[in-house]
Amino acid sequence: MSLNDAIRAKLAAVSTATLTTVLMKRGLRNAFISDLTLINPGAPRMVGPAYTLRYIPAREDLDHLKVFEDRGHPQRRAVEECPPGHVLVIDSRKDHRAASAGGILLSRLYKRGVAGVVTDGGFRDTPDIARLDFPAYHVAPAAPTNLVRHHAADIDLPIGCGDVPVYPRDIIVGDGEGVVVIPAVIAAEIAEEAFEQTVFEDFVEEQVMAGRSIFGIYPPDPSAKAEFSAWRAARKR
Amino acid sequence: MSLNDAIRAKLAAVSTATLTTVLMKRGLRNAFISDLTLINPGAPRMVGPAYTLRYIPAREDLDHLKVFEDRGHPQRRAVEECPPGHVLVIDSRKDHRAASAGGILLSRLYKRGVAGVVTDGGFRDTPDIARLDFPAYHVAPAAPTNLVRHHAADIDLPIGCGDVPVYPRDIIVGDGEGVVVIPAVIAAEIAEEAFEQTVFEDFVEEQVMAGRSIFGIYPPDPSAKAEFSAWRAARKR
Amino acid sequence: MSLNDAIRAKLAAVSTATLTTVLMKRGLRNAFISDLTLINPGAPRMVGPAYTLRYIPAREDLDHLKVFEDRGHPQRRAVEECPPGHVLVIDSRKDHRAASAGGILLSRLYKRGVAGVVTDGGFRDTPDIARLDFPAYHVAPAAPTNLVRHHAADIDLPIGCGDVPVYPRDIIVGDGEGVVVIPAVIAAEIAEEAFEQTVFEDFVEEQVMAGRSIFGIYPPDPSAKAEFSAWRAARKR
Amino acid sequence: MSLNDAIRAKLAAVSTATLTTVLMKRGLRNAFISDLTLINPGAPRMVGPAYTLRYIPAREDLDHLKVFEDRGHPQRRAVEECPPGHVLVIDSRKDHRAASAGGILLSRLYKRGVAGVVTDGGFRDTPDIARLDFPAYHVAPAAPTNLVRHHAADIDLPIGCGDVPVYPRDIIVGDGEGVVVIPAVIAAEIAEEAFEQTVFEDFVEEQVMAGRSIFGIYPPDPSAKAEFSAWRAARKR
Amino acid sequence: MSLNDAIRAKLAAVSTATLTTVLMKRGLRNAFISDLTLINPGAPRMVGPAYTLRYIPAREDLDHLKVFEDRGHPQRRAVEECPPGHVLVIDSRKDHRAASAGGILLSRLYKRGVAGVVTDGGFRDTPDIARLDFPAYHVAPAAPTNLVRHHAADIDLPIGCGDVPVYPRDIIVGDGEGVVVIPAVIAAEIAEEAFEQTVFEDFVEEQVMAGRSIFGIYPPDPSAKAEFSAWRAARKR
Amino acid sequence: MSLNDAIRAKLAAVSTATLTTVLMKRGLRNAFISDLTLINPGAPRMVGPAYTLRYIPAREDLDHLKVFEDRGHPQRRAVEECPPGHVLVIDSRKDHRAASAGGILLSRLYKRGVAGVVTDGGFRDTPDIARLDFPAYHVAPAAPTNLVRHHAADIDLPIGCGDVPVYPRDIIVGDGEGVVVIPAVIAAEIAEEAFEQTVFEDFVEEQVMAGRSIFGIYPPDPSAKAEFSAWRAARKR
Repeated sequence: MSLNDAIRAKLAAVSTATLTTVLMKRGLRNAFISDLTLINPGAPRMVGPAYTLRYIPAREDLDHLKVFEDRGHPQRRAVEECPPGHVLVIDSRKDHRAASAGGILLSRLYKRGVAGVVTDGGFRDTPDIARLDFPAYHVAPAAPTNLVRHHAADIDLPIGCGDVPVYPRDIIVGDGEGVVVIPAVIAAEIAEEAFEQTVFEDFVEEQVMAGRSIFGIYPPDPSAKAEFSAWRAARKR
Repeated sequence: MSLNDAIRAKLAAVSTATLTTVLMKRGLRNAFISDLTLINPGAPRMVGPAYTLRYIPAREDLDHLKVFEDRGHPQRRAVEECPPGHVLVIDSRKDHRAASAGGILLSRLYKRGVAGVVTDGGFRDTPDIARLDFPAYHVAPAAPTNLVRHHAADIDLPIGCGDVPVYPRDIIVGDGEGVVVIPAVIAAEIAEEAFEQTVFEDFVEEQVMAGRSIFGIYPPDPSAKAEFSAWRAARKR
Repeated sequence: MSLNDAIRAKLAAVSTATLTTVLMKRGLRNAFISDLTLINPGAPRMVGPAYTLRYIPAREDLDHLKVFEDRGHPQRRAVEECPPGHVLVIDSRKDHRAASAGGILLSRLYKRGVAGVVTDGGFRDTPDIARLDFPAYHVAPAAPTNLVRHHAADIDLPIGCGDVPVYPRDIIVGDGEGVVVIPAVIAAEIAEEAFEQTVFEDFVEEQVMAGRSIFGIYPPDPSAKAEFSAWRAARKR
Repeated sequence: MSLNDAIRAKLAAVSTATLTTVLMKRGLRNAFISDLTLINPGAPRMVGPAYTLRYIPAREDLDHLKVFEDRGHPQRRAVEECPPGHVLVIDSRKDHRAASAGGILLSRLYKRGVAGVVTDGGFRDTPDIARLDFPAYHVAPAAPTNLVRHHAADIDLPIGCGDVPVYPRDIIVGDGEGVVVIPAVIAAEIAEEAFEQTVFEDFVEEQVMAGRSIFGIYPPDPSAKAEFSAWRAARKR
Repeated sequence: MSLNDAIRAKLAAVSTATLTTVLMKRGLRNAFISDLTLINPGAPRMVGPAYTLRYIPAREDLDHLKVFEDRGHPQRRAVEECPPGHVLVIDSRKDHRAASAGGILLSRLYKRGVAGVVTDGGFRDTPDIARLDFPAYHVAPAAPTNLVRHHAADIDLPIGCGDVPVYPRDIIVGDGEGVVVIPAVIAAEIAEEAFEQTVFEDFVEEQVMAGRSIFGIYPPDPSAKAEFSAWRAARKR
Repeated sequence: MSLNDAIRAKLAAVSTATLTTVLMKRGLRNAFISDLTLINPGAPRMVGPAYTLRYIPAREDLDHLKVFEDRGHPQRRAVEECPPGHVLVIDSRKDHRAASAGGILLSRLYKRGVAGVVTDGGFRDTPDIARLDFPAYHVAPAAPTNLVRHHAADIDLPIGCGDVPVYPRDIIVGDGEGVVVIPAVIAAEIAEEAFEQTVFEDFVEEQVMAGRSIFGIYPPDPSAKAEFSAWRAARKR
């Protein structure tokens, strides 16, 4: 499936909460990466296919500053090769004591048109990252360079990120709450169903804020379903 | 003890820090729920008797979306039955990988006049919750529906929340720092003593900001006690 | 080495991220205290020699409120004796379930001209602390008084703070990202090298934001080094 | 379903590993309680319906030694009321810093004909328990009495034990590896299928130890299935 | 209080479980060090006053193999100076990724007549230690030398060990279950009361194993108390 | 470097403790995999080059029992393709809630002449594995099949195992204490130096057990070095 503009727009209009519910209906109970913080809450919504980078633990004799002189270094390749519109997802083994990347690399990703970046570790230069108009998710700030804990092993293989499996080209969606991973093959139908669910929940929220009980409407009984149809028609949604 | 308006007002005027000190004098060393975040810092102070909801781990064959069609489902009953002015406290076994509740349910609690909600797990739809004028405390955002990790077992039994015991009708107080649990039977005297302590600490803070040493005043020697009495009388507090 | 004004100024002008890189070049891979939050982000940058306070676990018969009547109590002595311009670093054994200190003590430290305070536990009265123009780093708010978990054992001995060794007089530097510990004997050269690195990274950031690849410039090849020299000369930095 | 002798015998003849595989085929992925140690490995295999005890965190004013003078105390009632042939499963919130029970209570359970005991906390008097001919599973020894951390809240409600849901009357099976929880309603069919699978795996193990590759036999292709049928017939299993 | 032979004998005859109960009656709820393993279960019971060693995190430039050439190195001093009959208790900050000590040092402690050794980290050379007739308690084997994680800071100061406060000269008692810390000033009375309690529990255990209910005897009603007196008199205990 | 018989013999004759010290001298401080248990302590010492298997988190739609019908499944390929004399090292992301492998697969590895197996997760069928004459290291028993938590992603890539980097062909050595990872390129010199160190420590241990102080001998001064030379010559070691 290619992530066409219509699907991308729908995914950007729904919440990660709604997406996880739709995934759960298909038996996918482990699609949300917990414990992430969005460093720059004003950034655009993040939607895009996954491109991955994998770290293993560092080894003192292999991981020193000279490695970055090699253009084949996987971290630097990931930054220059992650396709525009994609999301760079980094497996840092949930270790945020050293940085997965820093301000200069994230600036480069942003300028290259990448859709966002996610790590289950931490970023450095986070005060600078907070000023980029670019969605960046991590666990906690990590000033030390990646070399003190992480060795960039390879790119674009299946990884785990925050205990969630991520395959290259899975669709990654982020909002103010966190990040959800959608298998590529079902992304279109998930987008559609989540969009529908969102319209319905807007209706419910409006009713509840008007003082109505959740019983009979959340989930809806036949009468509430009819009511919703009328509400929706009236609003042309 | 009923939580009358005077006691409620005093509890809303003191900090959780001061309350824990007063509780500690009575040998109660484990009354503060750690690791909580107040999602909506501009919300009113939270004070009210506890009403509880208990989750156990989910089981795939029992916990699916159809369960919400049952009006007897404990989560939904808790939302509709928690008395106005009470605080809904949820035992989520410190697991914030799935939601304890979400935006629509918290909207309903708010509209019903509930005083606040606390979980040692996470809420979903937190960007929406942040806009409610309603105090909601959790550990971290959790987009997935409760069903993927939690099974609502029962309501209004004694529970643990963040390693703290909570009995129905205990008095729950929250501020910008977190949440404290006060045994109902001593709430009035705790409120009184904490209020007195707060006035004294305002005096100390004023003195310290004026450059005075903490020695002799914090704790106060007889001379500082006299000084405080004069200060208090002058301010009619 | 005394921390003269020039070194202090340089350390206040560089990030903890850059400092950890310079330390890592000397084989020091464990100098950043993770998991800290700066309570008051608008406070001045924190730079100063370490003065330490060590907690061990509390014992019920020894740790009660009367201990504070003793002017020799190590917590109170630390607050009154930490030299102006120094940073008070507290070993709380990474336990933030009780406070390392609270608003009144931090106000006193601030008024005494102390440069900042760091704990690997939590502070209480954090809404008040957030209003002080004084850098305070902790892990999470902790309303309960230190006595319920911590016993102040001694002052100005070597400690661990967040798994990082801290020796009295080490130079402590904090920014929006966290806190780094620099051995006193190399602080001057670290400051110098980090300052140089910062100027270079400003150049790189500017180039990257103008659309340039990181290859050839980060790290720089000979041509980029020449370019940087010209850039720097033009800007008189 | 009553746990008749034939089912009980089959469950005692299969491993918890095989049982989890059979449960997983039905979508039940969370049925094994991890991190348990069998204190007395020479004890009989444990099989029986669950009877539960739930602890919440202790409160200093409620949990003191006098509580045991009350025959209605839930821990003491559980020990005297858990039916013979049942397994007492204790929710200790995964906290093994205080005992869930000790040698005298476990002796009483043993003498009363209870089938075994499981806690996700710890037992005390473990050197004594190791000499009982009675299966007892816990996480680690915990010398302190339950009162310092645990308050016995109630008996025979649904609980969590080691992150696994346990409903009264679920069938609990233990072996040298740990403990599995089987929903009562499917226990008979699970027992049957696991027994069949065990016979097959005995065949596979024999073949593998004779030098055969796992390919074609584990899982079996049609030829290996036929071979197994012959093997089984020859052994009259 | 000096630890005379009579007290030492009583402490060696009671369990850590019983000791924690007696301590809890005096309000001391945090005296048992959890998560310890006795490496050599056949070793004599461990009883003796505490002598302490404190580690802080290692620093690469300070902690290298040459440090052991200094006879003033605190780890080596502790091994040569811990008085015979005392227990060496080591604060390793609950980090067992590097050794607190190894086989040769423990052999030396054993030969010097030290009563035992406890760390909340790990020992190395544990297969050798398992053959010493000397009680050694740790969390898990740790092959790496202490230098990779630990810096020996000082000796015979108050420390924390496994979240329990330990003051020099506190009485340390170990059995097959773990280690308990008794304030020196009350050690004699604790020994006495625990010894009495042990005789009583032997009576209860005997009764329970004969088929008696715990009600009425554990805790004992007046009739059971009389029965116990007779039982005790008959056995001259 | 090929792992010839002489090197293999030396590595089998030294402890992991000694090997970590020799590695630490070369700046390699993170070579020991902590928290492992040797399931079958009577098995031969484990020495061999690493062959790796990598798991990522499972996904419900991909990880079901049918996957094992594919001979290309990485777990099954690893079992059939790991070369004789090599050690299979498995990256299970430190998650022992599901099995990395079970009794039948370990039997097959054993029969194929593999030198041992290591996971930072758990094995199932551990009572059976305990009877194999084959070294198997894991964290804790895990009855559930790997599919409920783990997806076998690929084989023979660099991995992390228990926070330690493992590259294919690194030399893996296990003893009763745990497992150490030696970079292939220095394995011969490490073996040599560790062997020498072992002879020396045998001398020291003998001296210490004869009552000698560690001062002057551990580390040795010139006189002790001479003494050791004589001791060694006399024993022809």
